[in-house]
Amino acid sequence: MSNTELENYLAFSIKLAEECGQVIRDGSKARYHKSEEVKGNNNDVFEKYGNPTDLVTETDRKVEEIVRDRISKEFPSHKFIGEETVAAGIKCEFTDDPTWIVDPIDGTTNFVQGFPFVAISIALAINKEPVVGVIYNPFMNELYTAIKGKGAYLNRTTRLPLSYPHNPLPLPNLSHCLVLTEMGSDRSPSVIDKKIRSIHNMVAQPGQSNRSSGGGSTKKAGLVRGIRCMGSAAVNLCFVAKGNADIYWEIGCWEWDVAAGIVICQEAGCIIVNANGPDESPVDILGRKFLAVRGCSPSAGDTDAKQSQLRIVRELWNVVEEIECPR
Amino acid sequence: MSNTELENYLAFSIKLAEECGQVIRDGSKARYHKSEEVKGNNNDVFEKYGNPTDLVTETDRKVEEIVRDRISKEFPSHKFIGEETVAAGIKCEFTDDPTWIVDPIDGTTNFVQGFPFVAISIALAINKEPVVGVIYNPFMNELYTAIKGKGAYLNRTTRLPLSYPHNPLPLPNLSHCLVLTEMGSDRSPSVIDKKIRSIHNMVAQPGQSNRSSGGGSTKKAGLVRGIRCMGSAAVNLCFVAKGNADIYWEIGCWEWDVAAGIVICQEAGCIIVNANGPDESPVDILGRKFLAVRGCSPSAGDTDAKQSQLRIVRELWNVVEEIECPR
Repeated sequence: MSNTELENYLAFSIKLAEECGQVIRDGSKARYHKSEEVKGNNNDVFEKYGNPTDLVTETDRKVEEIVRDRISKEFPSHKFIGEETVAAGIKCEFTDDPTWIVDPIDGTTNFVQGFPFVAISIALAINKEPVVGVIYNPFMNELYTAIKGKGAYLNRTTRLPLSYPHNPLPLPNLSHCLVLTEMGSDRSPSVIDKKIRSIHNMVAQPGQSNRSSGGGSTKKAGLVRGIRCMGSAAVNLCFVAKGNADIYWEIGCWEWDVAAGIVICQEAGCIIVNANGPDESPVDILGRKFLAVRGCSPSAGDTDAKQSQLRIVRELWNVVEEIECPR
Repeated sequence: MSNTELENYLAFSIKLAEECGQVIRDGSKARYHKSEEVKGNNNDVFEKYGNPTDLVTETDRKVEEIVRDRISKEFPSHKFIGEETVAAGIKCEFTDDPTWIVDPIDGTTNFVQGFPFVAISIALAINKEPVVGVIYNPFMNELYTAIKGKGAYLNRTTRLPLSYPHNPLPLPNLSHCLVLTEMGSDRSPSVIDKKIRSIHNMVAQPGQSNRSSGGGSTKKAGLVRGIRCMGSAAVNLCFVAKGNADIYWEIGCWEWDVAAGIVICQEAGCIIVNANGPDESPVDILGRKFLAVRGCSPSAGDTDAKQSQLRIVRELWNVVEEIECPR
C-alpha cells in the first residue's frame, strides 16, 4: 500500500467523519434543543438485546448507513464491519482484505444524555492490522487521526506526543497514573464483580487491597492517582494518546470501539497489550480486552520508554483480575 | 440583601472567575506547551499531607491569592474560606456573615494531567446559605452562574433546565440514571471500601448485589445506566444542573468544592440532600456528603418533580453504604 493511497484513505475518512459529526450534532439538537415538545421526547432511544444499560438510537443507525453507503460506493472491493450492521445480524467477516471498521457513535449513552464524550470512529485495516484511524468528537470538535508509520495528530496540526522529541513525563509507578476504565454494559456477575474488584485494587493503598475479593487472590493494590470513566472507548484511547491520562484498561469492548484508537495510540508512542497478560505482544484487535499505556520518557533505570511502559503494564496486571470475555 | 447587591456580587464573581481562568490556562500552557524543556517539568506539583493522590500546584496557590486579595479589597468586611488558605493552616470560621467560599482549582489532578474537567468555584454565602455561585471551566470555556431565586445559567444566556418550562425527561427509576461519582483522595479502607461496595451495588443487576460486601447488608442493586467519574465536584454538579447526568453521589468533598454548585443546582431545579439519608431536608454544606438529583418532569404516579426526585433519592440510599466522614 503506497503512502499516497493511505493519505487518500485518511482524507476520505476525515471528510466522512466530519460529515457524520454534523449528523450527530443535529441528532443531539433534535433531542435536546429544538423545542419544548421535542425536549421531552425519548422515543428514538432503544435498548439493545433487552439490556437497559446498552442503548442505540436512530442517529447511530443513520450514521452507520451513511458510512457504509459512502464506503461501498468509493471502495466497492473493500469489506465493512460496523457496530450496528453486526447488531442487525449481518455477518461481517474479518479477513486480510482492506476492511473498514466503524463505530458510528462510540458513547451512545453519553449521546443520549448530552454528555460531551461522544465520537465517530473510522478505521481501515489491511492484513487485519489498523493502518488508518480517525476519531472525531463533534461536541468538543476534536479530530484525532493517524496513518501507520506517519504519526498521530489532533485537529490535523498538533502532533500527538511520541516519546521523542516531545519529552513527556516519565511514569515511575502506578501511583503516578491516572487510569481510564469503564463499568460497561455487561453487568453479569462474572464480569462486573471482577471489574469492581480490579478497580478496588487499583485505588486501594498497598497492604489494604482485596478486602472485597474474599481472599486467596495474589492481586496487589496500586494506589493509582485517580480513576476516570468517560463512557467512550474511542475517546479514552485518544486521551491516552494525547497524554491526558496515563492508562486505559478495558474489558468487553469490541473491535469497532478500538480499531481507530489503536493506530492513533501506537502512532503517539503508546503501547497497547492484553488487559490481563501475560502476553506482551501487541494486542489482538478481536480480543475484547485492552490495556494502553501512554508514551513516556524512560524512568530512572529504564533503558527506553518501552521498558518503562512494560513495567507499568506488569504492575497493572498484578492489580487486576483475569476476566473471561468470549466473543 | 437587595437584588442589585446580589447582581453586583455575581458580576464581580464572573469577572474574577474569568481573570483566574486565564491564569489557569496560562499555568497549564507553561506545564505542557511552552517548550520541550518545560514539557517534562513536574516540579510545581506537590503532594498534600503526603498523599500521592491529593495534589496541589503553584497555580492553585496563585489563583487563591488573587481571589483572596480581590475580595479583601472590594469587600473588606466579608469573610473568606478557601481551600488553599485552610490547607495552609489558617483558621476560616463559617458564620452568618457574608462569606466567600472558593476553590481556586477544583480538579487539580485533572489540571496536572491536562484533563479538561477543571474549574474555579466561587460562592457567596449569607446566613450560611450559598446565594451566589459561579463555576468556570477555562478549558471548555463553560461558565455556570446562579443567584438564589433568579435561576441558573450557562454562559450567561442559556437558562439551565428547571422542570418548568423546559420539560426535562422524567426519572422513572435508577436504571434510567447516569450517575456521577468519584473515588476521591481518601483511600483509607473505612472510606474507599464502602465507596467501592456502593458503586458495585449501583451497577449490579438486581438480585446480584453485595457480592463484595460479605453479606449481612440490607443494601440493594440498582443497575444504573452508567457511572461517570470526571474528577471535579464543581463540574459534576454543573453537569447535573444541566441535565447531562442524572445523579451526583459524593462522599468526602468539602464546602469549597460544592458551595457554588449547590446554588447552581438548586436554581436549575435539582435537589441536593445528604448522601446516605435519612434526612430529606436540603443538605448541610459542611457535611461532606452530597447527593444531587437533576430537575425532571414528574413520572407517572408522582404529583410533582420533587416527589420523583425524592423517590430516586430513596432508591439510591437503599443502594449505597453509610460512610462516616468526620471533619
